[in-house]
Amino acid sequence: MRTRAQYIERLGKMNRNLYCNGEKIDRLDERQQGAINVMGFTFDAAWDPESKDLCTATSHLTGETINRFNHIHQTPEDLHKKQDMTRYLCNKVGHCIQRCMGVDAANAIHAVSYEAQKSPRAKTAYHDNWLKWLERFQREDLVASCAQTDVKGERLKRPSEQTDPDMYVHVVEERSDGIVVRGSKVHISEASISDEILVVPNRALKKGEEAYAVCFAVPSDYEGVKQVVHFHNYRKRDYYQRGIETGYTDSYVIFDDCFIPWKRVFLCGETLHGGIAALLFALFHRHSYSGCKPAMLDCVIGLAALAAEINGIEKTPNVRRMLSELIMTGELGYAAGYTASALGKPEVYMPGVGNVPYGPGNCIPHSIYANVGRCLTGEAVFHEQEILCTIAGGMPATFPFEKDLINPETRPLLEKYLNRNPKMPIEDQIKFWLTFIDYNLSSSAGTSTYGAYHGGGSPIMEQIAITSQYDIESKKDIIRALAGMSPRKK
Amino acid sequence: MRTRAQYIERLGKMNRNLYCNGEKIDRLDERQQGAINVMGFTFDAAWDPESKDLCTATSHLTGETINRFNHIHQTPEDLHKKQDMTRYLCNKVGHCIQRCMGVDAANAIHAVSYEAQKSPRAKTAYHDNWLKWLERFQREDLVASCAQTDVKGERLKRPSEQTDPDMYVHVVEERSDGIVVRGSKVHISEASISDEILVVPNRALKKGEEAYAVCFAVPSDYEGVKQVVHFHNYRKRDYYQRGIETGYTDSYVIFDDCFIPWKRVFLCGETLHGGIAALLFALFHRHSYSGCKPAMLDCVIGLAALAAEINGIEKTPNVRRMLSELIMTGELGYAAGYTASALGKPEVYMPGVGNVPYGPGNCIPHSIYANVGRCLTGEAVFHEQEILCTIAGGMPATFPFEKDLINPETRPLLEKYLNRNPKMPIEDQIKFWLTFIDYNLSSSAGTSTYGAYHGGGSPIMEQIAITSQYDIESKKDIIRALAGMSPRKK
Amino acid sequence: MRTRAQYIERLGKMNRNLYCNGEKIDRLDERQQGAINVMGFTFDAAWDPESKDLCTATSHLTGETINRFNHIHQTPEDLHKKQDMTRYLCNKVGHCIQRCMGVDAANAIHAVSYEAQKSPRAKTAYHDNWLKWLERFQREDLVASCAQTDVKGERLKRPSEQTDPDMYVHVVEERSDGIVVRGSKVHISEASISDEILVVPNRALKKGEEAYAVCFAVPSDYEGVKQVVHFHNYRKRDYYQRGIETGYTDSYVIFDDCFIPWKRVFLCGETLHGGIAALLFALFHRHSYSGCKPAMLDCVIGLAALAAEINGIEKTPNVRRMLSELIMTGELGYAAGYTASALGKPEVYMPGVGNVPYGPGNCIPHSIYANVGRCLTGEAVFHEQEILCTIAGGMPATFPFEKDLINPETRPLLEKYLNRNPKMPIEDQIKFWLTFIDYNLSSSAGTSTYGAYHGGGSPIMEQIAITSQYDIESKKDIIRALAGMSPRKK
Amino acid sequence: MRTRAQYIERLGKMNRNLYCNGEKIDRLDERQQGAINVMGFTFDAAWDPESKDLCTATSHLTGETINRFNHIHQTPEDLHKKQDMTRYLCNKVGHCIQRCMGVDAANAIHAVSYEAQKSPRAKTAYHDNWLKWLERFQREDLVASCAQTDVKGERLKRPSEQTDPDMYVHVVEERSDGIVVRGSKVHISEASISDEILVVPNRALKKGEEAYAVCFAVPSDYEGVKQVVHFHNYRKRDYYQRGIETGYTDSYVIFDDCFIPWKRVFLCGETLHGGIAALLFALFHRHSYSGCKPAMLDCVIGLAALAAEINGIEKTPNVRRMLSELIMTGELGYAAGYTASALGKPEVYMPGVGNVPYGPGNCIPHSIYANVGRCLTGEAVFHEQEILCTIAGGMPATFPFEKDLINPETRPLLEKYLNRNPKMPIEDQIKFWLTFIDYNLSSSAGTSTYGAYHGGGSPIMEQIAITSQYDIESKKDIIRALAGMSPRKK
Repeated sequence: MRTRAQYIERLGKMNRNLYCNGEKIDRLDERQQGAINVMGFTFDAAWDPESKDLCTATSHLTGETINRFNHIHQTPEDLHKKQDMTRYLCNKVGHCIQRCMGVDAANAIHAVSYEAQKSPRAKTAYHDNWLKWLERFQREDLVASCAQTDVKGERLKRPSEQTDPDMYVHVVEERSDGIVVRGSKVHISEASISDEILVVPNRALKKGEEAYAVCFAVPSDYEGVKQVVHFHNYRKRDYYQRGIETGYTDSYVIFDDCFIPWKRVFLCGETLHGGIAALLFALFHRHSYSGCKPAMLDCVIGLAALAAEINGIEKTPNVRRMLSELIMTGELGYAAGYTASALGKPEVYMPGVGNVPYGPGNCIPHSIYANVGRCLTGEAVFHEQEILCTIAGGMPATFPFEKDLINPETRPLLEKYLNRNPKMPIEDQIKFWLTFIDYNLSSSAGTSTYGAYHGGGSPIMEQIAITSQYDIESKKDIIRALAGMSPRKK
Repeated sequence: MRTRAQYIERLGKMNRNLYCNGEKIDRLDERQQGAINVMGFTFDAAWDPESKDLCTATSHLTGETINRFNHIHQTPEDLHKKQDMTRYLCNKVGHCIQRCMGVDAANAIHAVSYEAQKSPRAKTAYHDNWLKWLERFQREDLVASCAQTDVKGERLKRPSEQTDPDMYVHVVEERSDGIVVRGSKVHISEASISDEILVVPNRALKKGEEAYAVCFAVPSDYEGVKQVVHFHNYRKRDYYQRGIETGYTDSYVIFDDCFIPWKRVFLCGETLHGGIAALLFALFHRHSYSGCKPAMLDCVIGLAALAAEINGIEKTPNVRRMLSELIMTGELGYAAGYTASALGKPEVYMPGVGNVPYGPGNCIPHSIYANVGRCLTGEAVFHEQEILCTIAGGMPATFPFEKDLINPETRPLLEKYLNRNPKMPIEDQIKFWLTFIDYNLSSSAGTSTYGAYHGGGSPIMEQIAITSQYDIESKKDIIRALAGMSPRKK
Repeated sequence: MRTRAQYIERLGKMNRNLYCNGEKIDRLDERQQGAINVMGFTFDAAWDPESKDLCTATSHLTGETINRFNHIHQTPEDLHKKQDMTRYLCNKVGHCIQRCMGVDAANAIHAVSYEAQKSPRAKTAYHDNWLKWLERFQREDLVASCAQTDVKGERLKRPSEQTDPDMYVHVVEERSDGIVVRGSKVHISEASISDEILVVPNRALKKGEEAYAVCFAVPSDYEGVKQVVHFHNYRKRDYYQRGIETGYTDSYVIFDDCFIPWKRVFLCGETLHGGIAALLFALFHRHSYSGCKPAMLDCVIGLAALAAEINGIEKTPNVRRMLSELIMTGELGYAAGYTASALGKPEVYMPGVGNVPYGPGNCIPHSIYANVGRCLTGEAVFHEQEILCTIAGGMPATFPFEKDLINPETRPLLEKYLNRNPKMPIEDQIKFWLTFIDYNLSSSAGTSTYGAYHGGGSPIMEQIAITSQYDIESKKDIIRALAGMSPRKK
Repeated sequence: MRTRAQYIERLGKMNRNLYCNGEKIDRLDERQQGAINVMGFTFDAAWDPESKDLCTATSHLTGETINRFNHIHQTPEDLHKKQDMTRYLCNKVGHCIQRCMGVDAANAIHAVSYEAQKSPRAKTAYHDNWLKWLERFQREDLVASCAQTDVKGERLKRPSEQTDPDMYVHVVEERSDGIVVRGSKVHISEASISDEILVVPNRALKKGEEAYAVCFAVPSDYEGVKQVVHFHNYRKRDYYQRGIETGYTDSYVIFDDCFIPWKRVFLCGETLHGGIAALLFALFHRHSYSGCKPAMLDCVIGLAALAAEINGIEKTPNVRRMLSELIMTGELGYAAGYTASALGKPEVYMPGVGNVPYGPGNCIPHSIYANVGRCLTGEAVFHEQEILCTIAGGMPATFPFEKDLINPETRPLLEKYLNRNPKMPIEDQIKFWLTFIDYNLSSSAGTSTYGAYHGGGSPIMEQIAITSQYDIESKKDIIRALAGMSPRKK
């Protein structure tokens, strides 16, 4: 396993293919440091005695100890640990831990490439290719991001119906030595600080959409890959230092007729499995949200409870009601993930067929529970912000700039008039409100909220997953029996 | 274990202490038959090969096979099975299965009497008394109800502050051979069809409220006990028969200076344990809701989906969204219960102390998860009714009376004009709507909704449990660390 | 103007065409008395010095004083008075006042028949016919109900697409002396206690659906009209008398090849005006809801505040929050209606064209405000019930039967244990809870809620009206200008 | 009346008492230009033929034409025009128009100073002083801001109970020539670009809190007044120009033992009138929200509808439902304000007494309607953001930086992959999303949302106003009558 330093060192050597604000930049650019710092925690934690049990696993390929973010889950216990690791690490950095996309994509492709290889029309030994890639991924302790979200163009049209066929990443040429792909994946978190990018389809596909059924891996600085990067860093502080400096990046990952050799191709043309790849990555990723969303709720609860403490209203019935709402959302989200883990199996839901065995045996979370948890916590984010706004009052909206807080002409007046709780040092109160603003009123906060709502699939995608996979007919049968109606014709 | 017939036979022999609509009635009165029919299922299921594994258990006292409703849960697995048994049986009868109050009270008293007996001021060997009662309860396969809810009088006043001290059941006299109690418990489900009544306190108690800290058991036809009974039966049908006839009863159980011998007393004066008894019954009972509420959601989903099918709108986005909301509520409630079971331990939350070992080792569900699940599903009931109303449209509100549906002068016209789905026989459509009305527009439906909202503790009681037992300070610590604030002083 | 007694006397003489519970019944049947009592108030109030200014108007046809329920609104002031009259009378009877459907239909047909008569293909002098009917309606002070809601069959299909063409009332034959109509209108409030029935189409119509574009009037006991009647009366009380006895009826009004002479036909085949008739009746009726829904909220506020007073929790923050929600709903609904009245004009929204003058000059409420008000108050009803349930607690669900409350064996005990507020006589408390149950837990309550939700058009119908009539493009223009985008191409 | 240029010229001459980000700045500092540009519109509009009827009024003091923002409303018609002017101007600038605080405070003080002057213990001729100030205010067409919100310190304690007595602005010395005041008002919008600041109390006051019952006016650059200013400007654009550049400021206005001569004092020690001043400013200001909030909803509707158009989902049922929710919120808010205007009177609600005549005759909006409207629209803001997020999808969260959009290496790729609607020029799409981000994901957006939620009084303040001023007892009377209970004892 690598250390934080080794991870950073490798980043520093990569080719320049990042564009930002009109220029090409280095991977160790100052604006990437916050994100790199967050990712660094995933390395530290694997060595830290307090967390190494949670953050490492035993490779089922090699038997070696690996970072859990590079592990293929074998059992419900693995899923429990992944959930708890995610919550633990997100609590440490106060945000997304960034490395789950890689593990979620890897687990999806592990199963999909296995099934696709069995297809008589498989174009290469997908799963064999995959296992080679995976073995190196685990051994070298690489960071992978996952590129799933296509730009999607006209949103009510399928890939094959678009005016511009490049609105979904697709194969434009098949060669003897590999394939050429074109298109752009967007909102790709951590692509600019990852070693590898795993690419999976974005949706269910049908006959005629074979070109869109493609999974592969590329180094993130690969030729033919351009990344237009967006940073999400908080406002610099000169005086009131945070406990931790974090940041996030996401990229438009553009495949500009990019050549992929066969050994890096894990699916190419099998539309059924392409759709399952889309569904499975989403499923593993929604399960990851059962770790990170409770962790974010932990932060929201902390923010709400401290704001209430500073405002001296901690014991009021209104605040109690709002705290209990926050706790409910977080712990229901956790319970959904816990149950999805406990009921996990190497099975997948096949439309019109039901649950069937799938993949070489890796453990897949229960889809309904993973989806209901993600949907609940995703839909709650704006209401959480309303609760924080209610408890905080207007103060964060007009809080003085940091330099006014230390200007000798204004400092004593501001420290006098900002003080709401004689029992807490004013410096702590100021630091609290500055952090509250980071979390709720900054431009990064805006981005985070959109990410928390749409990331891993918008609530409407979970609704579709839930209603299409739930056995609604059996619930009708209950009523048919109670009402004395004729039984269902089967 | 008894059969349904043996259960009914014993009921028929009990003393008359039931008052209803101005008269004294027999336990086998016609108006009790629906409720008796429901309870009968708990006996049938213990013998039925399909369900006996779920519905029986091995007594930890005698090693004998007993009805699971009389079992003291020993392991998380026991809790899982109780949850699944409850969902299973509620689906069979389309409603509350009625027998969980007994098992929930028994599990609470089992732990409480054990701890209280250790008290130097214990007035009798509470736990020894209890074990004797329990052994007979299991052996004779008795039905117990639980009397917890006091009338409470002036609701912002504590028991000891009431204008009339009898607003909470309390000990008015201690004798050498037993105690005399006075007061009334209300909303006591199935008391009129149970063999025994277990009585537990209704709330946390403090010094000076010793008289209210009392647990005991009485036969439900005991001298000094009067029951004023309320029935909740659906409108009789003459022609369009239901698949099952059910009903419910609840009683005002009035202790009119009722004498209780010491061997039936399991707590008497230990206020701390009195509060824990209140809390523990509520906790076990909220865990039971993680079985019955998902079962009721199963029914609501079935009603909604069939109404949508009949109305021909099953595939519309609005209906899909509403079905997914219903599924989410049910399965999040189930997941909360599942997690509460899996994390169950012989521990209880002690205010100001945290979780501490409690009782002789019986398994207690995790309080936070049991509470968040009950709160979610309790708060959802009116919204569920809104969803059903939206999907059904106005038809159920003005549906013709049954006799008009069979009157030859009106029948052909009504069958013509009621028909909304040429693919479903009109008789099935009619039976469906009649059942829909039973569930949503009858006076019993009104009662059920109130029960689903307040039963097992109103949402506000769960909010209080959640916020008082959750480790909010540790969430503040997360923010303190992230914001660079001073650490918590401990 | 008639008196209550004259109204009842005329009812008593009508032909028997009411079917109920398997038999033909008289209009003065005991089960109709509650509804007749409510309708009687609309006659009393026109004579009562306290209310006659509000409840009468000056006929624009004859200049005579008429009941306002038979008036064609000439000015915004008329609309204000109609709104206030409705709120006033609904407060008196604690429910729907029942007579607004007639006035709303009359105002719609008044405008529609005027425009349709100008059509070159008009089949008769619609408006001349109408004015004759109207003059008698005002002079004889008749009660009209409005039959709009068709059974609708397969709900995603248009009238002309139904498997059974009779799912919407339509003309099956045109003769020289009149037309023959077939079909059934459902949920027709007060049809069994009205003198006349006004029939209007249920939806927008297109070419090929001419047979469905039909407006006419029939006496409610007319040959060829059958009514299958449903009653909604509260449970009889023997001892604790209500302050007023009310009741409601609705009918399936079945036109079994019913002949209508031309002088009673006000529209026949003009699909555009048929759609406008549907829209206009809905609009006037939604405006009526701006009177009755605030009145019902007045009742809900009263129920909530009295329940809180009895429970001794009137001053708690939770109750304050809930009361303010109820007040907001009621008064926003009132304000919407007030604004709709104030901005009323003889104009109608024509799809694709915008607002255009329509009708002979009668004042039509502003459609957007009438719709937003109805939608708000319609969607709120289940939440109102949740609020009442929260404040009341479980007591109403298991309240003793009336006879137990007077049985000497149980009365003293029940009066003792039901008492929650020493400052209010127990008899008042009991009467309050019995009424609370009438309003919220009876089968009539179930019906009322469905009526309040769907009556006058389900919320989704108002959403469609709002979004199709609102000038959304002009809002886009605001953003186009602010964002520096190209202006809209016109 | 002044022109925009004259307004700016005067600002340029004012004393430097603005602190920002550690330095003293000039009023024409670049960071103030956005806010000055917005305020400029209030001058332009008074000269613009299209709007001058709406934006000017006739002074009741002098009979001269004045800017409506400096007018004392004499009639409901004045209130209607103020509401419509506010909506009109906010639509022009796409945000708060900033000048309503002055007119709202002036209208409040106009009434309060009149009543207070009648007090036998009045310390100066408050109303005479006021009329002089007002006459100059109107004649010189000045801009006033209103300083109401105190820092409030320990929020559950009253002013007189605070550990630091300066947590509410108060009189620390009375002299023969005037008073000395100390304290800080916060969140004071536009104080840094206004000519004058009107100061009013923040809450109801009781005996012993006389020092807090103080109203006065100061020039905004007055000696003894320090402003710590916060700017809210959008990110600069280099290429994709907005249609209008706007900005906002707010200040901590600190009174550092500031001397106020008597002629500028309008209230000093009359606690009853101090509380009414607080209530009246809030009331007039909540009425102003009935103009600006519908205007902001107009913008939200425009953003939502354009996002849906670009995404090609404008006709989906989900979008229709969300648009109708937005329209409802905006138009119900408008209707509430309209009704508050129409029912306006020179009356004020006096706790425990009811509505009583107040002031010299200026027209005061109906309190209940002003409050329900503000509460509805204030509580809706986070839900509005959720709707926008749902419709927009994730795109705004990761939208490329402006310079990447024009970098020749990335521009063609980005323009290709950002294009979702072939019918709209890509430049318009880009401008749209950049503006969408300004409104929803910028740090200014965070501030705006907090302002929209808490500004003019948090929802909980409106709830308190509503429940304390509504005649709840009369609603109980309705139920008492219907239930047959004893009438209320009076």
